Amino acid sequence: MDNGVSLAAIRAARDVIAGNARVTPVWPSSSLSRIAGHPVVFKCEHLQRTGSFKLRGALNFVAQLTPHDVGRGLVAASAGNHAQGIAYAAHQHGIDVTVVMPVFAPLAKANATRDYGARVILHGNSLEEAHAEAESIALREGRVYVPPFDDDAVIAGQGTVALEILEQYPDAAEILVPAGGGGLLAGVATAAKALRPDIRVVGVQAAVMDGICRSFAVHRPLTAVPQRTIADGVAVAGPSERTFRLIERHVDHMVSVGEDAIAHAIVLLLERAKMVVEGAGALGVAAIHSGAYRPSGASVVVLSGGNIDINLVGSIVRRGLVDAGRYRRLLVEVSDTPGELALVARVIAEAGGNVLEVDHNRDAPGMPVGVAVLDLLLEIHGPAHFDAIVEALRHEGLRGVPGSPARLATESARQRHTQIER
Amino acid sequence: MDNGVSLAAIRAARDVIAGNARVTPVWPSSSLSRIAGHPVVFKCEHLQRTGSFKLRGALNFVAQLTPHDVGRGLVAASAGNHAQGIAYAAHQHGIDVTVVMPVFAPLAKANATRDYGARVILHGNSLEEAHAEAESIALREGRVYVPPFDDDAVIAGQGTVALEILEQYPDAAEILVPAGGGGLLAGVATAAKALRPDIRVVGVQAAVMDGICRSFAVHRPLTAVPQRTIADGVAVAGPSERTFRLIERHVDHMVSVGEDAIAHAIVLLLERAKMVVEGAGALGVAAIHSGAYRPSGASVVVLSGGNIDINLVGSIVRRGLVDAGRYRRLLVEVSDTPGELALVARVIAEAGGNVLEVDHNRDAPGMPVGVAVLDLLLEIHGPAHFDAIVEALRHEGLRGVPGSPARLATESARQRHTQIER
Repeated sequence: MDNGVSLAAIRAARDVIAGNARVTPVWPSSSLSRIAGHPVVFKCEHLQRTGSFKLRGALNFVAQLTPHDVGRGLVAASAGNHAQGIAYAAHQHGIDVTVVMPVFAPLAKANATRDYGARVILHGNSLEEAHAEAESIALREGRVYVPPFDDDAVIAGQGTVALEILEQYPDAAEILVPAGGGGLLAGVATAAKALRPDIRVVGVQAAVMDGICRSFAVHRPLTAVPQRTIADGVAVAGPSERTFRLIERHVDHMVSVGEDAIAHAIVLLLERAKMVVEGAGALGVAAIHSGAYRPSGASVVVLSGGNIDINLVGSIVRRGLVDAGRYRRLLVEVSDTPGELALVARVIAEAGGNVLEVDHNRDAPGMPVGVAVLDLLLEIHGPAHFDAIVEALRHEGLRGVPGSPARLATESARQRHTQIER
Repeated sequence: MDNGVSLAAIRAARDVIAGNARVTPVWPSSSLSRIAGHPVVFKCEHLQRTGSFKLRGALNFVAQLTPHDVGRGLVAASAGNHAQGIAYAAHQHGIDVTVVMPVFAPLAKANATRDYGARVILHGNSLEEAHAEAESIALREGRVYVPPFDDDAVIAGQGTVALEILEQYPDAAEILVPAGGGGLLAGVATAAKALRPDIRVVGVQAAVMDGICRSFAVHRPLTAVPQRTIADGVAVAGPSERTFRLIERHVDHMVSVGEDAIAHAIVLLLERAKMVVEGAGALGVAAIHSGAYRPSGASVVVLSGGNIDINLVGSIVRRGLVDAGRYRRLLVEVSDTPGELALVARVIAEAGGNVLEVDHNRDAPGMPVGVAVLDLLLEIHGPAHFDAIVEALRHEGLRGVPGSPARLATESARQRHTQIER
């Protein structure tokens, strides 16, 4: 079966998708290079048309359809990147396509998929339910079902990323690749090892959805229980037989990273690299930045997509900063009289703190009448700065204590990260 | 005086800064190309080291210092990009540098400037006060003052952007350049016109700080009254004699854009282009996207910097979406009894709306006892969807009215944009 995904097939895919898919740039990262102790270069698939690498596989899949299949039309299920990729690819080839998206799919992604010319059906409360609906539509309407990763043409299309990497950055000793169903990882590993047997290929997963990591450890495909992750683009239970066989053969190492590490990576990419990358796309950065993986030479980190829900960017940014100690919540007990807020604000300002939010609470359970609590969100330099502000308040007879971070970091439980070395 | 900024000087600057400054990529924009009706390509100076083009001028300035001046050390004033550029450039050449930043400078920028090895002094409530302090330090400590734009070496350094553009995208018929003090615009225009007299160079300013636009109209350098703008990187009162003379000679057209257009451009770059670009850096995008300027051929838009305060990204994103009709505030009158919120939430969910925030207000002035107002922030598809939700509530006997957008868009006054054609 996997004879279908050869270097020749991947090279052919490259010719097929040229013109519709972009050759995305590689770009060095000073911040990560410092951390890794070796050069780290990004492969910018978040700049790919439709915002992710998924377009490559979709274009290659569509190109190998028979005229009969083209006439039947297509159907696919996806919460995001696969939807946009297949919608764009079908549109380029003038093929009718229906995409089933779960009802929780972000409006921006549903709108983008529609803009590419697809019929969008919102159905089901999970990706599984959307998949079932797509398969039922395939039967009912006689459409061709487009699998998100379990297909030779799709895998060969994703593998074209590796051809570009090896030409754009021939010094690469390692490639880090995000993995969910394993289509991108299988394709990249197949191409990279065929051309450069000495290169090291590392797959990265979200720890809460680490089906490939587990499979890799026991040498047979396993599935994980579906859970929510910031890296929603790789929220797939596990690899298929097809992707797993290629991964077994060609991948050197699997690593998984926790939710906090992924959030930090998103913030690092925004703030330092000036790049908007979704959670799944940031997995390789998370692995190096968190220390979960240490490259042993010059490495290319595939930023696989940039389709992050823009509403989430704000909250993820905030979470990232809270963890880094730049945001802190401070509770100050004050008498419920005029001028107290002004006093507190002045003391904090003089100590160099920046007040971002204020809640004035006089009704908390157990609080004496006439006493109120100011609940402040501060931007500060770090822990020592926070202590200095509390000390400055004390000098004015005010008691300040660290506030609960619960409102800011609801998923504060730091995810364990696992490494499975062969 | 401006004989110092010749094509030869800019070519020499390119050799000087090579190795320390990056050759930033150009990248096509599908969204803007559709709007413009011509290809639009970004010149990605937000990916420059230190996050902006300012590094180029700073490196060229530092390289032409005499050994005596190097020994004296440097001092500069800046709230952001010039600070980081000069700190990095001085560090590369082992020169001691002090940067005065106004006290409101974002912590991230002060920290970055410090990380590059500069002594950072926070002083003054305006850029003018910081400048005065820097000049006083120059006198007191015998340091060389590094001007942000009014200097031949600085302008020649910025002009290297144009040399790269013409090689990377020879089809360019137009170049759009953000302008504050006019250093980048003067340098780019000088180089571009020397090499390609037929090319059209367009300067873009924030309408609230349009000193160069006004100067251009009356053929002499004027200054505007300093005002706050999202494009804080170009919040400069006006051009110098030196920059204005070059702009007069080489620039074809000046255009200004309002604050809303700039906010929209930032959101467009984040959401569609996956790029983090600051307000000043997004001016060219704002000009095309808002219709304030219509290119007459293939154009290159210089994205001059990406150092946007990460805390602002969330609020700008929200403002951008509110204006585009994807966020709406909804007030619903309910009886202050259990179950009412559940009912409202269910009706909205069934109508396809997404509730992002809820305030439950029972104490508003003039409100009868027993009646409360739910103040909801909704994510919706657009105006028709909002009306459908209100209608669905009416079917359940609930009255919903559009909420005031005041909390979301405090600077809602849409800025007039002006065009000054020669």
